[in-house]
Amino acid sequence: MHIKIVLIGKIKEKAYNDKIQKYLEWLSRDAKFEIVTVKDSNSHKIIYQIDKHKKSNFFCVCLSEHGKDLNSISFSKFIFNSGEKIVFFLGGPNGYPKNIIEAMDFNLSLSKMTMPHAMATLVLIEQLYRAFSIKKGSKYHRD
Amino acid sequence: MHIKIVLIGKIKEKAYNDKIQKYLEWLSRDAKFEIVTVKDSNSHKIIYQIDKHKKSNFFCVCLSEHGKDLNSISFSKFIFNSGEKIVFFLGGPNGYPKNIIEAMDFNLSLSKMTMPHAMATLVLIEQLYRAFSIKKGSKYHRD
Repeated sequence: MHIKIVLIGKIKEKAYNDKIQKYLEWLSRDAKFEIVTVKDSNSHKIIYQIDKHKKSNFFCVCLSEHGKDLNSISFSKFIFNSGEKIVFFLGGPNGYPKNIIEAMDFNLSLSKMTMPHAMATLVLIEQLYRAFSIKKGSKYHRD
Repeated sequence: MHIKIVLIGKIKEKAYNDKIQKYLEWLSRDAKFEIVTVKDSNSHKIIYQIDKHKKSNFFCVCLSEHGKDLNSISFSKFIFNSGEKIVFFLGGPNGYPKNIIEAMDFNLSLSKMTMPHAMATLVLIEQLYRAFSIKKGSKYHRD
């Protein structure tokens, strides 16, 4: 399985980067994981990224507070039913233009509440770790 | 305005405590803010805490993934329409028994997804900071 996160905008704070790195290490035991940062929030560059990933058979997931909200169990099923390649696009502070959301395969919400970019990335990567834990039946997720 | 957070279970990680402390400092400019940690997740002790706060005219809010999900704008209105005193109860890894949820005035969800205790606390305190920023019309929250 190959999971990618495309961050639109760099995470500057060390505290967040350290935590994210920790989850990434743990996740890398179970699948191929990558975080890619796209510096510019220019629409054309994001559309280019979506097209590129679609051509490589990635299931493209957009994260926005207007997306579908899944609980952790459903999110785990979602991950393991979306094929072998998934990419999550996490936008910057201005969100996405409508044409970008429409170009994605799925629109997912971590929360109805607006979170800072770094915090949303941390929440996403922890959910991915939880999704794998649920799939493996480990004690990390208590229902 | 007086806002309290009652944490059922201590936050051990320094990275989270540092971030939470930062928001607490910022929030303290606008209102009286307190975080209280209850070590034990014993039901009777939590019920005692709820009763104590209700007697002091606190609006008691329980946080759980089964609660009502509000977006940041609605959460801001919620805060400023709940009276002068609000207390948020943030449970430990095992959640709350049904009788505790029923004893509260409101059941709020930060996300349908299950988050670690420290992460949920950070998300809540950032939302409180955002709620005040929205109320004040500052640029922190971009819609």
